[in-house]
Amino acid sequence: MSHVLTVDLTTREVTVEDTASHSGYPTMTLEEMSAAILVPLMNADFNRTIVQRGVDLTDLACLPISTGWYGKVEENRRLIKVQCYSAKDTVNFYMRPIEGLTVLVDLDTRQVLEISDKGGSIPIPKAANTDYRYSAQKPNQVLKLLKPISIEQPNGPSFTVEDDHLVKWANWEFHLKPDARAGVIVSRAKVRDPNTGEFRDVMYKGFTSELFVPYMDPTDAWYFKTYMDAGEYGFGLQAMPLDPLNDCPRNAYYMDGVFAAADGTPYVRSNMVCVFESYAGDIAWRHTECPITGMQIREVRPKVTLVVRMAASVANYDYIIDWEFQTDGLIRVKVGLSGILMVKGTSYENVNQVSSPENLHGTLLSENVIGVIHDHYVTFHLDMDVDGSDNSFLKVNLQRVQNSPNESPRKSYLKATKTVAKTEKDAQVKLKLYDPSEFHVINPTKRTRVGNPVGYKLVPGGTAASLLDLDDPPQKRGAFTNNQIWVTSYNRSEQWAGGLLVCQSQGEDTLAVWSDRDRPIENKDIVLWYTLGFHHVPCQEDFPIMPTVSSSFDLKPVNFFESNPILRTPPNVETDLPVCVAAASA
Amino acid sequence: MSHVLTVDLTTREVTVEDTASHSGYPTMTLEEMSAAILVPLMNADFNRTIVQRGVDLTDLACLPISTGWYGKVEENRRLIKVQCYSAKDTVNFYMRPIEGLTVLVDLDTRQVLEISDKGGSIPIPKAANTDYRYSAQKPNQVLKLLKPISIEQPNGPSFTVEDDHLVKWANWEFHLKPDARAGVIVSRAKVRDPNTGEFRDVMYKGFTSELFVPYMDPTDAWYFKTYMDAGEYGFGLQAMPLDPLNDCPRNAYYMDGVFAAADGTPYVRSNMVCVFESYAGDIAWRHTECPITGMQIREVRPKVTLVVRMAASVANYDYIIDWEFQTDGLIRVKVGLSGILMVKGTSYENVNQVSSPENLHGTLLSENVIGVIHDHYVTFHLDMDVDGSDNSFLKVNLQRVQNSPNESPRKSYLKATKTVAKTEKDAQVKLKLYDPSEFHVINPTKRTRVGNPVGYKLVPGGTAASLLDLDDPPQKRGAFTNNQIWVTSYNRSEQWAGGLLVCQSQGEDTLAVWSDRDRPIENKDIVLWYTLGFHHVPCQEDFPIMPTVSSSFDLKPVNFFESNPILRTPPNVETDLPVCVAAASA
Repeated sequence: MSHVLTVDLTTREVTVEDTASHSGYPTMTLEEMSAAILVPLMNADFNRTIVQRGVDLTDLACLPISTGWYGKVEENRRLIKVQCYSAKDTVNFYMRPIEGLTVLVDLDTRQVLEISDKGGSIPIPKAANTDYRYSAQKPNQVLKLLKPISIEQPNGPSFTVEDDHLVKWANWEFHLKPDARAGVIVSRAKVRDPNTGEFRDVMYKGFTSELFVPYMDPTDAWYFKTYMDAGEYGFGLQAMPLDPLNDCPRNAYYMDGVFAAADGTPYVRSNMVCVFESYAGDIAWRHTECPITGMQIREVRPKVTLVVRMAASVANYDYIIDWEFQTDGLIRVKVGLSGILMVKGTSYENVNQVSSPENLHGTLLSENVIGVIHDHYVTFHLDMDVDGSDNSFLKVNLQRVQNSPNESPRKSYLKATKTVAKTEKDAQVKLKLYDPSEFHVINPTKRTRVGNPVGYKLVPGGTAASLLDLDDPPQKRGAFTNNQIWVTSYNRSEQWAGGLLVCQSQGEDTLAVWSDRDRPIENKDIVLWYTLGFHHVPCQEDFPIMPTVSSSFDLKPVNFFESNPILRTPPNVETDLPVCVAAASA
Repeated sequence: MSHVLTVDLTTREVTVEDTASHSGYPTMTLEEMSAAILVPLMNADFNRTIVQRGVDLTDLACLPISTGWYGKVEENRRLIKVQCYSAKDTVNFYMRPIEGLTVLVDLDTRQVLEISDKGGSIPIPKAANTDYRYSAQKPNQVLKLLKPISIEQPNGPSFTVEDDHLVKWANWEFHLKPDARAGVIVSRAKVRDPNTGEFRDVMYKGFTSELFVPYMDPTDAWYFKTYMDAGEYGFGLQAMPLDPLNDCPRNAYYMDGVFAAADGTPYVRSNMVCVFESYAGDIAWRHTECPITGMQIREVRPKVTLVVRMAASVANYDYIIDWEFQTDGLIRVKVGLSGILMVKGTSYENVNQVSSPENLHGTLLSENVIGVIHDHYVTFHLDMDVDGSDNSFLKVNLQRVQNSPNESPRKSYLKATKTVAKTEKDAQVKLKLYDPSEFHVINPTKRTRVGNPVGYKLVPGGTAASLLDLDDPPQKRGAFTNNQIWVTSYNRSEQWAGGLLVCQSQGEDTLAVWSDRDRPIENKDIVLWYTLGFHHVPCQEDFPIMPTVSSSFDLKPVNFFESNPILRTPPNVETDLPVCVAAASA
């Protein structure tokens, strides 16, 4: 049973103790996870199995796998499943599964409850070619493809960080906070209006609320792999120090996280977040007059952005989360996926041995290694405050209108129809390519000079949708992915899309449940939710470590400014640029 | 009547003269366009109208607007519609339409055929705040937001350009050619296999085949605005010299285009294309071991790419086309939209004066200025040669499978089913979010070590689909947008998705017609076609010049390499990076 205690910080007393509201358990502590993976080793049956598989116990590397919830009475205690790998001859033990062996452990008592072993005949894949460390590569195989390249700012960065958390850059200011569960929280984001010089509210708070990563293999050792990385593992807890010069460019500023250990002791996660200015050679706006008019005009402005980055390594997978601020008022939220696949052992060494390759549940990546098909959903809580806290959600739907023959030589055109969502159910959105809409968060009480309501629009990207059965237990727990977009009435207890207590939750505290209350959302303090989705069918290029795949969505001003807010920014000129020499010649 | 002549370069004789095959006329020459916009000025009625509108004839700026085709007998000659603007007090005449005035001109005889004037009561919008030039901004309003920032390569670039056209960079080589119609043609792109050191074919030829830009206003002065910018205006003809330091970073290489004038005289379009290495601070791949395993591992590789860029200014609009090559084998094709909107004059000064705002066909951007809703479709010809010319098109479809209760605690999972397209109709693809697929071009005769066919996959992006009536005349001409993906059997005459002769074409020579022949495409030399789409509902931020909006799609190796091809590349180290000082202190 979970206890949710409310503490009065002044009196230092517990004012509420809630044990009845919800199923589920809190985020695992790092100490619990580290302890859980050692439990099987104290079990003689387990050790015998490992030795039978030909693995030396000292080569064992194990992972704590969240169990989900499947409605059995035995699940009414805190559970973890432990799966193990051989780390012999490689640090990339993830590629060497001891397939089919799952140990069910009581997370509180640290006892083995059950050992399931259905993979005895499956060989452990070879270690060869799995180590990804630079130091492990053979010198004659190293590919030095490129000469040095760097983003340089000889006059220093254009941003400041005040009080360790308040970032000021160009026309933006916002607060930044590392968080054990969310990773990074961006709050009180404001942008300066070029006409008035005033800062205007855009977003009260934005963060990664939950992730949902269901694997697509219903067999015994795999069906339960339906991770919810923020609520189960702590997305911030799993964020490690960033690598200067590689995770972020040379010009980055680093911020530490301060978290509590299981016993309450504070500890520092150094360099957990970086902030840097990025210039990729892109164009903020341009126009050249063309040969037709013959006017000699060429006006181009370079695009420089500010990036806030963290990277969480939830065991095998690495998630790179970027919040990118543009001077034109746009905020781009980008999720990059890299790291290492969760793979399945198999006796197959070649696809030609497989009679029905589609029953592999994935792709044969190397001899005896299957990359299992899975999805990633990353759900963002976006508490928009467009020029104030009370906003509305406006759909601008584009639909074909047919002309009658004497109306126009054209038979058809697209017309935009605007609808303000009255209640939460009006704002449950499944994206449709053939019935397209724009999605605006507007301030209905504030209009531009010519009368448009000021707003920001959500520009979707990474639009993969969950296709699991709505009654499938994982999908009930991950029901916040039933729609790509939701808008809820602000409620301080509704921060975590999968619920406050996510481990073994039963799905009664999700965003889907809150939204189905159908509260009014017109001209209210509202929260926008967006889910970035990826279907991942692995391929051999993902072995033994995956090149980054990214998707992003944008929050973009729409009639928020009276006109282009970066009209009056100057172009680059040569005399502003640095003078550089090669490091070796310095 | 168009004459298509085939010339034998050896004998210098015309071997074929074809006048009968197709409707439509060739791309307009710059000289024709420049001449056409002067024709109305020689008409007394036109000049009287202009003066009545209060515009001085010396302030007139006019544009040649392609007429499309609407099935009338009067259209059986080369036509152009001229619309004019007031350039008084601004270079941004596009924001000052003389609304409702359309002059139909014979492009060959340069005669006025018809003047349609239905906008007499509509005021010409004011010039104030429309000039976007830096020199026209008031010094006290200039926003210097940022200190200098630059991409620096003190040891020089990592690419070479041989014979003016052959680009070699990292593990890539490809040929680059400016083209009057397509803009830029990338051909014979090959990537080096890290295991064998051999170059392997990826793409024989890729280019912007056609654009389709229908505006969504059926009224007299607007219905015909359904541009096909490559075939009508020449996407390369409209590409102007790039602005060093702003269109491309400091480290860019520039390439000239050489085109023929109307009389055959060659001329040089200088700096039309740039090539540069980009580093935005992104991550090529990474993994950090997390606190659970306790292993001290942090391996991260920075992502550096090579960008080929051109920018075409087709009158008001600017299209930025990037071909971006990554060391992991991925090619990203990105289209950026900037420049200036095509706007409509109106008597409205505020939305509160409008009884049915949805009938505006757009957004009130400023007093008397409507930004009209429109779409952009950019169709790419991608003649893939994955390890040789004969390839197949494989769809990998993900579908939900329901489990029976005793099979698994899970009720459902996704399964991948592969289907090879036998004929062209099998490969007509409308993207579906709830029936997702991957789209592979594979070489069915070549397999990886573990037996997967080698391939490249098309990763869609910018998925807006045309929703016009299929029988609408513009949609018949732009029928290549009826599907987002097509695959055709290679035919040297099928290069231009809207047909060879696009001006006033009737749609009988489009990609849709070719594909409906339903030729076999399995294990053949095939061409992949992809259309990037944008719906554009303008907003005030687009006035008076638009911040760039971009979309992209990827061509990505899928079981093409045996494993991650950049596993063995080294990380950045400080001693490699340049030493820079501020320009002022140099």
